[in-house]
Amino acid sequence: MFRTHTCGELRLTNVGQQTTLSGWVQRARKMGGMTFVDIRDRYGITQLVFNQDVNAALFDTANKLGREYVIRVSGEVAERSNKNANIPTGEVEILVSELSILNESKTPPFTIEDNTDGGDDIRMKYRYLDLRRNNVRENLELRHRITFELRRYLDQMNFLEVETPILIGSTPEGARDFVVPSRMNPGEFYALPQSPQLFKQLLMVSGFDRYFQIAKCFRDEDLRADRQPEFTQIDCEMSFVEQEDVLNLFEGMMKHLFKFVKNIDFTEAFPRMTWEDGMKYYGSDKPDIRFEMKFVELKEAVSGHDFVVFDSVPYVGGICATGCAGYTRKQLDELTDFVKRPQIGAKGLVYIRCEADGTFKSSVDKFYSADDLKQIASLFKAQPGDLILILAGEKRKTQKALCELRLEMGARLGYRNKDVYAPLWIIDFPLFEWDEDTQRFYATHHPFTSPNLDDIPLLETDPGAVRATAYDMVINGVELGGGSIRIHDSALQHQMFKHLGFTPEQAEAQFGFLMSAFQYGAPPHGGLAFGLDRLVSLFAGLDSIRDCIAFPKNNSGRDVMADSPSTIAQAQLDELNLVVDLKPQTPKGA
Amino acid sequence: MFRTHTCGELRLTNVGQQTTLSGWVQRARKMGGMTFVDIRDRYGITQLVFNQDVNAALFDTANKLGREYVIRVSGEVAERSNKNANIPTGEVEILVSELSILNESKTPPFTIEDNTDGGDDIRMKYRYLDLRRNNVRENLELRHRITFELRRYLDQMNFLEVETPILIGSTPEGARDFVVPSRMNPGEFYALPQSPQLFKQLLMVSGFDRYFQIAKCFRDEDLRADRQPEFTQIDCEMSFVEQEDVLNLFEGMMKHLFKFVKNIDFTEAFPRMTWEDGMKYYGSDKPDIRFEMKFVELKEAVSGHDFVVFDSVPYVGGICATGCAGYTRKQLDELTDFVKRPQIGAKGLVYIRCEADGTFKSSVDKFYSADDLKQIASLFKAQPGDLILILAGEKRKTQKALCELRLEMGARLGYRNKDVYAPLWIIDFPLFEWDEDTQRFYATHHPFTSPNLDDIPLLETDPGAVRATAYDMVINGVELGGGSIRIHDSALQHQMFKHLGFTPEQAEAQFGFLMSAFQYGAPPHGGLAFGLDRLVSLFAGLDSIRDCIAFPKNNSGRDVMADSPSTIAQAQLDELNLVVDLKPQTPKGA
Repeated sequence: MFRTHTCGELRLTNVGQQTTLSGWVQRARKMGGMTFVDIRDRYGITQLVFNQDVNAALFDTANKLGREYVIRVSGEVAERSNKNANIPTGEVEILVSELSILNESKTPPFTIEDNTDGGDDIRMKYRYLDLRRNNVRENLELRHRITFELRRYLDQMNFLEVETPILIGSTPEGARDFVVPSRMNPGEFYALPQSPQLFKQLLMVSGFDRYFQIAKCFRDEDLRADRQPEFTQIDCEMSFVEQEDVLNLFEGMMKHLFKFVKNIDFTEAFPRMTWEDGMKYYGSDKPDIRFEMKFVELKEAVSGHDFVVFDSVPYVGGICATGCAGYTRKQLDELTDFVKRPQIGAKGLVYIRCEADGTFKSSVDKFYSADDLKQIASLFKAQPGDLILILAGEKRKTQKALCELRLEMGARLGYRNKDVYAPLWIIDFPLFEWDEDTQRFYATHHPFTSPNLDDIPLLETDPGAVRATAYDMVINGVELGGGSIRIHDSALQHQMFKHLGFTPEQAEAQFGFLMSAFQYGAPPHGGLAFGLDRLVSLFAGLDSIRDCIAFPKNNSGRDVMADSPSTIAQAQLDELNLVVDLKPQTPKGA
Repeated sequence: MFRTHTCGELRLTNVGQQTTLSGWVQRARKMGGMTFVDIRDRYGITQLVFNQDVNAALFDTANKLGREYVIRVSGEVAERSNKNANIPTGEVEILVSELSILNESKTPPFTIEDNTDGGDDIRMKYRYLDLRRNNVRENLELRHRITFELRRYLDQMNFLEVETPILIGSTPEGARDFVVPSRMNPGEFYALPQSPQLFKQLLMVSGFDRYFQIAKCFRDEDLRADRQPEFTQIDCEMSFVEQEDVLNLFEGMMKHLFKFVKNIDFTEAFPRMTWEDGMKYYGSDKPDIRFEMKFVELKEAVSGHDFVVFDSVPYVGGICATGCAGYTRKQLDELTDFVKRPQIGAKGLVYIRCEADGTFKSSVDKFYSADDLKQIASLFKAQPGDLILILAGEKRKTQKALCELRLEMGARLGYRNKDVYAPLWIIDFPLFEWDEDTQRFYATHHPFTSPNLDDIPLLETDPGAVRATAYDMVINGVELGGGSIRIHDSALQHQMFKHLGFTPEQAEAQFGFLMSAFQYGAPPHGGLAFGLDRLVSLFAGLDSIRDCIAFPKNNSGRDVMADSPSTIAQAQLDELNLVVDLKPQTPKGA
């Protein structure tokens, strides 16, 4: 028998009992004729005592134990004279009478402590050791608790978890599919799902009424900062619902989760903001509303003063940073450099200092009088001591740059506190996005999203103005989830495909079975999907989703621990009727 | 608003209330000036009444409703005069005052009834309609309930659910991997996991102590009768355990599930049988012990009677079928044909009838005297009226044929009742299997299975006799799950690889990171995995696992509904640096 208790279990009430523990050596300290060893498992740490006077041979063995050795010990539970109030087992220790070394350990390449000395690369290569660290394991424990509680909640709400296939057909729309060659069907490929979208809609046609799945999804995209080629989605769909029903149900779920994980009560309804207002006031479809600092549009106020930078552009907007009037030249130059970085792309930054004495000082003093500046400041309701920051340029691009500047100022001012949660719904997304390169509309959400029924007349006359019945849940500037009411009418779906530039043949080839299903009594339905990795990261206060994934991949999609992907045997390729041709391909259209 | 109640919710206590329901038209019956429509959703069926005298226009609309139309109705709940005791809503009906057609439906290609007129092929093509049938949906509801309850149970037992990657590295050992070309790593491939084996062992090295996952697994094998290219496994692993701990915990889980799903109490421990006894008495490592009919070995008893068929073979064995002495010539010929089928492969069948008068009649009367036959019958403890059936030949092959014959007789005699459950553990599997073709040993379970420590001396002298610390749970002749205690010592693992014919370089290339992990303090550990598809099929009494999978594939690995797999675009192949070459390949070794 390996243990009678875990290493986190013994208390004063166990004193005098015989116990057997198994675990890892966290550290050993020799003090005169006594050696103290901390034994660790997932559940905690317990102090072991070896006394030279009681058992010299055992004492000698104990002194040979290295870090991360796996041991089993038996002995009597005793009260500690020198208690450790920091750990639950800190009032007791084990007077060891038996010790077996179950396995030795080489010296780990980094310390197994909350604050390790190991860098990112080495910890990823030895991920199995990194996972021994309490804080890393706790992220995965939280992930377990969150998924378990979500399942419990959705089960109580009559949702059925249904597994949909991982080996599906490839659909060209959207991001890139991973494909899987089929040995039994030579020359043909499965794809891995980017989401279970089609299948969950089919389940609604099947009358499943309420479906969910905690589903693995896959995207063969270039991996930006915080993406993984495989990710997990809490995927939900409901029948006989309108947008209001979906928002209410999942707002309830999220409130439940906040209570469960954080003991936070959200008594008020989550605010709702149209996509248009998100862009206007925050330059973003996922605004961080932990703080105000809303955009003020200034084009009208600043025009006609012979300042060509403002006069020549369609958009001028700014934000007001409370109490930042004292920013030095150097600090303002930093901010200018920040907004001029290529990924932000502003041309420059204009500031107005609202001095403590009620005067104004600006980088554009020669174009604007004191009264002009006062008038502009009043649009921000700026107070003495505030700093106004202004950008100008093409509308959407400048809004996005101003969004980054706002987030930067929010961070500098300590407004982006990880312990504060500010959820909201973004609604009324545009149905279509126009792509200049290909000169066609794309579905903002996906081709099955229903237009707002009020806007249907606009479909033919002004498609860009049609609002979708689509919604995102955003918390602290992170898009946690989103969804839509779907089209359940074949005629409307065909109209959508037409606007998206599909020929009837293309639509039939890609979505024929869904269109066919819709002819046999499709109910009104809608749903949404939450990103589980992001959700856990939010609750754990993580900077990267990698920290809540047991075996993540790096930015090149590689598992550096297992060294995958890798080449495969020629025989395997032959069986799949495939030839690898690494010569650079000439693009067909070139 | 689409509904105030579901179609399964209204009772006599609701009479007089206004209600709104949405669902599908199950059927409509016109009787004089009244039309009765049954409206169906996942939760039940409710009767709607349209009265020509009350609202003639509504009555006309109701008469145009086709099967599977999606409708919304409002009206008053009323007590039925003609109650239907078969359904929970059978005491009430709705006097409809409003009716909207939410969607029309073409006539389904088969009837949406428990006993449908649709064949397998058409139901698979229109799987979304097949899933509307109550009995099909109920299988998936059961699957949901079983997985939810398993998660609850394992969570209570301190198991953490951890998601392991789907995109992993390819390992040549075992059944064939599906592979996934990587666009970001040209010429390299991921593989889809046949099981999370390596990752769950790494999690034990990481100190996760108790891990589980309801995990998708993949095998690119030729699909036999009841296999799917993707399947779901309840995958578990524990640290600091011996075989006894694992068996106890998962026997407890299965007993809990029987109580939960079937309200069956298993008060006794599951029987345990060695693999050797399974072969000896049932010719199988997954014996159906709902009935006895154990094999009796006869080689000694039948030898030396100049019957060359028995004298020339190493194995003669038989079974005794109670009360079958009356089998006709035709029935016995059927059995002979049965055992001679190529997939069973026996050469012939010998019988001994134990007549009611105490005499014996056999197909080999000329070689065996009445006394001889009596003596043989006594080995079976045969009674007058019983029929003894005997096969002879090479040992394992004949045992397997006799196993099939036993199952056939068990079925004929009604012993294989789906409402009776006979679980057992098979233990002491052989560690290695010898393969004649390649003249090498293969791991019976997998290369990480620990030998029985008592047999370690045999590793060098008689590897074929070494028992594994491996176990299967078998119920009613189905292997529901299996596992083993793993090797946690690198030296022993290297020894295993040597016996399995891996060079150190091959072992390093394939399992290097696991071997490396084992050098940093691997705990003793073991686990097992259950096949979820088989488990649900067992509890639902299904003949095929396909019936508890929402969107299964056929025997060629195709989804006939979505028509996948399929060819992909040239541009996609170019990006992946792949060329499809359908010319027949010349095998390298030919």
